[in-house]
Amino acid sequence: MASAETTPLPPQPGALKPRSARRAVGEALDEHFELEPGFVDEVAAALRADDRDFVRSLVGELHYADMADLLERLDSEDRKLLVDAIRDSFNPDVLPELAAEVRDEVMDTLGFEDLAYALRELDSDDAVYVAGKLDPEERVQLLARMPPDTRKLIDLGLSYAETSAGRLMQRELVAVPNYWTVGETIDYLRSGRKTPEKFYAVFVVDARHRPMGVVELHRVLKAKRPDHMRDLIDPEIDVIPVDMDREEVAYLFRQRDLTAAPVVDKSGRLLGQITIDDVVDVIEEEAGQDILRMAGVRAEQDASLYRNVMSTAQSRFIWLVINLGTAFLASAVIGVFEGSIEKLSALAVLMPICASMGGNAGTQTLATVIRSLATRELNAGNMVRVMWKEVFVGSINGFLFAAITGAAAFLWFNDILLGVVIGGSMIVNMIAAGLAGITIPLMLDKMGADPADSAVVFLTTVTDCVGFFTFLGLATWILL
Amino acid sequence: MASAETTPLPPQPGALKPRSARRAVGEALDEHFELEPGFVDEVAAALRADDRDFVRSLVGELHYADMADLLERLDSEDRKLLVDAIRDSFNPDVLPELAAEVRDEVMDTLGFEDLAYALRELDSDDAVYVAGKLDPEERVQLLARMPPDTRKLIDLGLSYAETSAGRLMQRELVAVPNYWTVGETIDYLRSGRKTPEKFYAVFVVDARHRPMGVVELHRVLKAKRPDHMRDLIDPEIDVIPVDMDREEVAYLFRQRDLTAAPVVDKSGRLLGQITIDDVVDVIEEEAGQDILRMAGVRAEQDASLYRNVMSTAQSRFIWLVINLGTAFLASAVIGVFEGSIEKLSALAVLMPICASMGGNAGTQTLATVIRSLATRELNAGNMVRVMWKEVFVGSINGFLFAAITGAAAFLWFNDILLGVVIGGSMIVNMIAAGLAGITIPLMLDKMGADPADSAVVFLTTVTDCVGFFTFLGLATWILL
Repeated sequence: MASAETTPLPPQPGALKPRSARRAVGEALDEHFELEPGFVDEVAAALRADDRDFVRSLVGELHYADMADLLERLDSEDRKLLVDAIRDSFNPDVLPELAAEVRDEVMDTLGFEDLAYALRELDSDDAVYVAGKLDPEERVQLLARMPPDTRKLIDLGLSYAETSAGRLMQRELVAVPNYWTVGETIDYLRSGRKTPEKFYAVFVVDARHRPMGVVELHRVLKAKRPDHMRDLIDPEIDVIPVDMDREEVAYLFRQRDLTAAPVVDKSGRLLGQITIDDVVDVIEEEAGQDILRMAGVRAEQDASLYRNVMSTAQSRFIWLVINLGTAFLASAVIGVFEGSIEKLSALAVLMPICASMGGNAGTQTLATVIRSLATRELNAGNMVRVMWKEVFVGSINGFLFAAITGAAAFLWFNDILLGVVIGGSMIVNMIAAGLAGITIPLMLDKMGADPADSAVVFLTTVTDCVGFFTFLGLATWILL
Repeated sequence: MASAETTPLPPQPGALKPRSARRAVGEALDEHFELEPGFVDEVAAALRADDRDFVRSLVGELHYADMADLLERLDSEDRKLLVDAIRDSFNPDVLPELAAEVRDEVMDTLGFEDLAYALRELDSDDAVYVAGKLDPEERVQLLARMPPDTRKLIDLGLSYAETSAGRLMQRELVAVPNYWTVGETIDYLRSGRKTPEKFYAVFVVDARHRPMGVVELHRVLKAKRPDHMRDLIDPEIDVIPVDMDREEVAYLFRQRDLTAAPVVDKSGRLLGQITIDDVVDVIEEEAGQDILRMAGVRAEQDASLYRNVMSTAQSRFIWLVINLGTAFLASAVIGVFEGSIEKLSALAVLMPICASMGGNAGTQTLATVIRSLATRELNAGNMVRVMWKEVFVGSINGFLFAAITGAAAFLWFNDILLGVVIGGSMIVNMIAAGLAGITIPLMLDKMGADPADSAVVFLTTVTDCVGFFTFLGLATWILL
C-alpha cells in the first residue's frame, strides 16, 4: 500500500473538504450537516417564482435524508410545489425519512400512480413501513396499482405485528447452499442476479432453506476461492423468530455486535434478514420514547412537531386529566387537616416542601430504574439488592435534608417543634420516594406495560399524598 | 440457488433451535437471551466449592457479552474467584462491556501483567476506551508493560477529547491506493497481511493518504476483478474530522445510513475509521442519558446500579439541594399571602392544584422539545412556529382545565368566586408552563449546556412560583 505518484488521477471532488463545502449547488448544508436556513429560503423563493428548473438544480444533488429535511422545513404549500417540481425524479428513499404528518402530505401530492411506482423501488422493509402508515382504504387503492409479486410481499409484511421482527426484516438477501465454495459465491454475486442493492453478510442455508450460519462479507473476501462457505460460518448463530419483539431484536444486535441476522418462520426456514441500519433506528426510537412516556406524551407521533395544535392539545389532555385527579387527591389529603391550617398558617407555607423533595428524589430513582430496565442491567438477579440500596439512599438523604430543612424552618418561624415536624416528614417521604421510584416501574413492567409509562404520575401521587399527610399529620399531633 | 439434496451434510448444531437451547453447557440463557438466574447460582456454587474445572466447563462457551453480564451479577467475592479461574483464557472483549465499577474490580484482580496482555489483543478503539477509564497512575503502570507501538497508539487515542470522534475511531482499517483494481484489493485481503479482524468497507486513498472514497464490501464482491476501486466509490464522501463531537458523528451515521466512515486529521489524511457498531453504543447512551439528565441524575456512571450507597446518595444530594432552594422559593411566594390563607383556609387546600398541573403540562412540552432537539427535528427554521404552537396548546388546555377545575372547586366549597380564581390562575399557569417548557431547553442549548440538564428543576420553579402567585394573588384581590 505504498503511496505512489505514478498514476495521474482525474480530479476527484472533495477528498479533503467536509461534505458541506463540496456542494455543487451553493451551501445547502452547514458544518453540522444540517440544511442552511438560507438554502431553504432560496428553494422556497424559487418555488413561489415557479422557476422549476432552478428548483431542480438546487435540490438535484441532495441526499435523500436532506431532501426529507427540506420537505419538513418548507410550509405546506411550498411542500406541494416542491413535490410537483421533482415528481419525475422523486427518490422513494425520502419517504421513510419523513415525519408522519409530512409524509401523508407528500404521499397525497404524489398521488397513487407515482406512489405505487416509488414503493416498488424501495427495499421490502421500507415499502412495508410506508404502506403500513397509510389508511386502510388508501392502502387498498395503492396496492391495486402494484405488480402482484410486490403486492404479495407487502401484504405479507403487513401481516406481522407492528413491533415484531417481521416488520423490521427485509426479504432481499443473499443465501447460498452450504456446499458452495467462496468462488461460486463470488461468481454468483458478480453475475448480479437478484442480489440486493446493499448487504452485509451472506447466509448459508441447508437443503430445506434453514439458515446454518452467517458469513460476514469480510470473511468472504479474506477466504480463498476453493474454501467452503460452510467452513466460514460462525458456530454461534443467532436466529430471529419472525414474531420476536423489535426491542428484543435490538438488544440481541447490541449484545452480540451483529450486522445482519436471519429471520425464520416457525419451521425454521429463512424468511428474510434484519440489518444493523434498521436496528439503529429502533434503538434511537426506543431509547428516546422513554423520556416522552415518562413525561406523559404517549407516542412518537404525539410528540411530532408537525402535528397540529388541536390534536396535540387533545393528546396531552388525557394525561393531564389523570393528573388533575391526583392533584385533587392531594388536595383532599390537605382538606383533612384544614382545621390545623386554620390554627397555624405556617403549615400552609411549608407543606409543599416535603412533597416537592419527595417528588424529585423519587424521579431520580425512577429515571435510573427505567434506564436500567431498558439496558437490562436491572433484572430478577439483583432486584432485591437494588431495592435495599434505594431505601438506604433515601434514608441517608432523608436524614440530611431533615436536618437542613428543619433548621431552615426553625430559623424562619422561630419554632423548634415546627422544625422537628418538617424534618420527620422529610425522612418518611424520602424513603417512600425511593421505594415508589423502584416499585412503580417494576410493577408496570410486570403487568406488561412499559415501565416508563405514566410512571411520574403514579410516583407524584405517592410522594404528594405521603408528603402532605405526614407533614400535616405530624404537625396536628405534635404542635396542636 | 435451488435447494439440493445432493451433498450430504455433517450434522450442524442448532440451525433451527434458538440460541439458548443450543448451549452445550446446560441452559445459560433464557428465551430473552439473558442469563438464567439458575445458571448464575450454579457458577457461584462451583466457585465457592473451588471446582475450577467445572467453572471453566460452565462458562467456557459464553459469548463475551454474556460473560460480562455474569461477572456483573456475581457478588464481589465470587467475581474475583471467577476472574482467577478463567485468567488464562480471559477474553479481553469482556472489558468494554462491563459496568465501570465492576470493570475496576475485574482489572484489579487481573493485575497489570494480564491486563496489559488483554489490552494488546483488543481493537485500538476498545483498548483506548478501557485505558481511558483507569486512574492516571494505574494507566502509567499499565502502559509501561505494553509494546511501544501499542503504547503509542493508546497514548494518541487518549489525547483526543473524551466525546470526540478520535476516541471513537479504530486505527485498524483497510485502505488501498486509488489506482488499484478490485482483483488487487481481493488478493491483498486474501494475503491476510495487516487486515483488521472485522471490517465493513475499504477506503480508497490518494497518494497523500487522504480518503477519496469508501467502498462498501458488497460493492467489492459484486464488481469484476479488472474494475478500478476508484470507480466503485460513492461520489458523496462523508469525512469525519478527528475532533468532531460523537453526537454529531452519530447523527451523520443515522442520517446517511453509513456503516463505516473515514476519520481524518487537520490536513485531511486518513487516521482511522468509525464503524456502525461503535455508533450504536453512542446512540443508545446519548438517547438514554437525556432521561437521566432531565431527572437530575448526572452521568451514566451516577446511574449505575453497581455504585455503592454512599456515592449514589452523594451524587443525588447536589441536585436535591438545588431543589430544596426552589422549594423554599415557592414557600416564600406562599408566605407573602399567609394573611390571606389565615382568612380563608380553603386556599391552602386548593393551592397545589394549579402548580401541579403547570408542572406536568410543562414537563410534557419539555420532553417533546428535548427529544426534538436530540433528533434535530427542532431547529432555527421552525423554532418560532413551535413556540407559538406551544402557547396555543397551553391556552386551549388552560381554558379546558379552568372550566373543569373551576366547577370542581365551586362544587367542593360552594363558592363561585373561588372557582373563578382557580380557573383564571389555571389559564395563566398552563400558558407559562408551555412557554417555560420550550424556552428552558432552548436557552440551555444556546448556553452550550445539554438541553435536558436540570431542565425539570428550572421548569418547576417557574410553574410552582407562577402557580402559587397567580392563585393566591387573584384570591387576595377578588375574594378578600
